[in-house]
Amino acid sequence: MPIADPRPGGRAARVQQAVHDAVRALQADQDNDFITVPKIAALAGVAPSTIYRRWGDLGGLFADVAVARLRPDGPPDTGSVFDDLTAWAEQYIEESASPTGRKFMCDMVSGGADRASAIRGGEYARERVKTMLERGRRRGERVPDLDDVIDVVLAPIVYRIIFDPDDVPTGLASRLVRRLFDDIPSPHTDPA
Amino acid sequence: MPIADPRPGGRAARVQQAVHDAVRALQADQDNDFITVPKIAALAGVAPSTIYRRWGDLGGLFADVAVARLRPDGPPDTGSVFDDLTAWAEQYIEESASPTGRKFMCDMVSGGADRASAIRGGEYARERVKTMLERGRRRGERVPDLDDVIDVVLAPIVYRIIFDPDDVPTGLASRLVRRLFDDIPSPHTDPA
Repeated sequence: MPIADPRPGGRAARVQQAVHDAVRALQADQDNDFITVPKIAALAGVAPSTIYRRWGDLGGLFADVAVARLRPDGPPDTGSVFDDLTAWAEQYIEESASPTGRKFMCDMVSGGADRASAIRGGEYARERVKTMLERGRRRGERVPDLDDVIDVVLAPIVYRIIFDPDDVPTGLASRLVRRLFDDIPSPHTDPA
Repeated sequence: MPIADPRPGGRAARVQQAVHDAVRALQADQDNDFITVPKIAALAGVAPSTIYRRWGDLGGLFADVAVARLRPDGPPDTGSVFDDLTAWAEQYIEESASPTGRKFMCDMVSGGADRASAIRGGEYARERVKTMLERGRRRGERVPDLDDVIDVVLAPIVYRIIFDPDDVPTGLASRLVRRLFDDIPSPHTDPA
């Protein structure tokens, strides 16, 4: 199991960074099936036992790397929730709909015996949406429910990437965000 | 790679049945990590080489078993699309939201190097929805778009099961189907 939030700059954080970097470098050249713990350990400059102790197995490590990819700097901040959500959804599609992105998503879902990485991936997405909605609420905007953002916008994107990767059309993000805002019962500022 | 649609009653079909049964029996007792090709082969009465030749690797075989689970007798037929979709969504949740169901879903997403099993799983779901919608159209009902059924009803269910398994509340199926019908622009028979 990965250690949750190792102190930045601590040894745990440095090891994690080196191991993640090694995995990413190996994944750039070859399929997961050909990557082994000794290869990763050699490239990262750590003992194989460090990897086994910390991540349990390769599936858990691949999943951890996939989740880490989902944590960029912070959600978009355009000044309106409608535009923030659209930009965020577009960015999510861009990062995940490529063959590599899809592979990461599948690693995240499958990795680790307890499937904890998928749940962490889901939590990160919720946190980012929550940030955008709270900013909008502070600005006095009428904002959608967090759960509705997940159901109406994020879920169809993730579903298509996993189950129907040839069906992620241009404009999907804004179409889904529009559906979300159409569903808000009370009047709201028309984003058009 | 599994052979597509082996003739029913043929040797290929009998082998597939025996191997699937063996995997299911082993999975009832132990985690996938402890299941090996020789164990499956012994229980199924086939040579290990048969399994390697046909399924490539264990991931592909687990994924194939998971997809096969999604193919029950046929979608519900209650006489109205609204009720059919609700019954189908409830059934989908019931089959997938248990820890076992979730494990199968994750196997399906991760299994096989080319991830083809997830795509087949997506196709089966579309076929079943298409059947329900076509029946409704023949009865003269106003029916939602196939893509909207996937986006509005199926995607949120699958997303929650994978990423947020503690958040699959009672009544989710009918709430999502109601949202779908609320979105149909022209007047429709109120299902309430």
